[in-house]
Amino acid sequence: MNSADIQSLIQLLAKLPGLGPRSGRRVALHLIKKKNTLLEPLSAALIKVAQNVRTCSVCGNLDSIDPCSICADTSRDTSICVVEEVDDLWALERTSVFRGKYHVLGGVLSALEGIGPEDLNIVSLLNRMRETSAQEVILALNATVDGLTTAHYIQEKIEPLEIKITRLAHGVPVGGELDYLDEGTLSAALRARRPM
Amino acid sequence: MNSADIQSLIQLLAKLPGLGPRSGRRVALHLIKKKNTLLEPLSAALIKVAQNVRTCSVCGNLDSIDPCSICADTSRDTSICVVEEVDDLWALERTSVFRGKYHVLGGVLSALEGIGPEDLNIVSLLNRMRETSAQEVILALNATVDGLTTAHYIQEKIEPLEIKITRLAHGVPVGGELDYLDEGTLSAALRARRPM
Repeated sequence: MNSADIQSLIQLLAKLPGLGPRSGRRVALHLIKKKNTLLEPLSAALIKVAQNVRTCSVCGNLDSIDPCSICADTSRDTSICVVEEVDDLWALERTSVFRGKYHVLGGVLSALEGIGPEDLNIVSLLNRMRETSAQEVILALNATVDGLTTAHYIQEKIEPLEIKITRLAHGVPVGGELDYLDEGTLSAALRARRPM
Repeated sequence: MNSADIQSLIQLLAKLPGLGPRSGRRVALHLIKKKNTLLEPLSAALIKVAQNVRTCSVCGNLDSIDPCSICADTSRDTSICVVEEVDDLWALERTSVFRGKYHVLGGVLSALEGIGPEDLNIVSLLNRMRETSAQEVILALNATVDGLTTAHYIQEKIEPLEIKITRLAHGVPVGGELDYLDEGTLSAALRARRPM
């Protein structure tokens, strides 16, 4: 018995990841109450993103410019960090440790979901490798079965180009307690132990 | 290192109830990926709500018309259900049991938060009581300390008008197990027991 406008807003909000009908109603009401400080800025921000944000034709990142600000940044070195999705790129950027460029695959190989090499940005990665003089490729894929399979596939494709290939270290998360770690992580951390 | 457009969208999404920086990023990325099916419809729905939805001048409900569709519905009876917020009204409407009209207080009395009777829509409620021939007032406030205080305050104000005043029943939630209920609810349910 809500107005149709509110109803359709709630239905759309309920489709967002992590939200459902109940939280959709809660968010809708909150937005209506904070019309000037939240609802209107949010609708303006959505329009801006819809108009401006595009996929970088070089690396697959999302940005308002193409090539994206990372690809256009000449102060960055020539190493390329391969990630599954844009949010992985964001996570790595927040560390401010990596000063090279990225390549977003757009997923991982998955026999189960029928995702093959042609569905990912692998050809464009190999072309980039051949055209630019990348000094290192970091395969920063998730440590899942599909992520590891994809990393091996890319490794095989890149090896003939004789570029240094690395992957992220496995080990104890900083702040983590040994007692709570799974055996796979703990044995990986033990095997890769480092001198103090 | 995201684009400024994405960054400001994430910051706004992170302010929504139940979301934070991490889920804000997740929602933003999801929206960008589903630009045509989610991002654009959502921004259109937000604009429509911002333009059309207003507070009903009679009862305090939110709707695209004023008086709201409930107040304007002549098939509804003259009883008035007093609720704290619009989401309580929505919850009661979903039951389809109540066929009267509503009055949204906009909160409850709270000494702690400094909310007095003048901050709530109590005067307009009393005016409605005097002007219309309401047969019954249902005080459907939350069963919290502040909710009960507010219900008692309104009861005292309405009593001189000699209108039937009721409140929602306390008891065992339908589908609930006795073992998990607090003692207050269980003793209320026992005292208010009904013949089978």
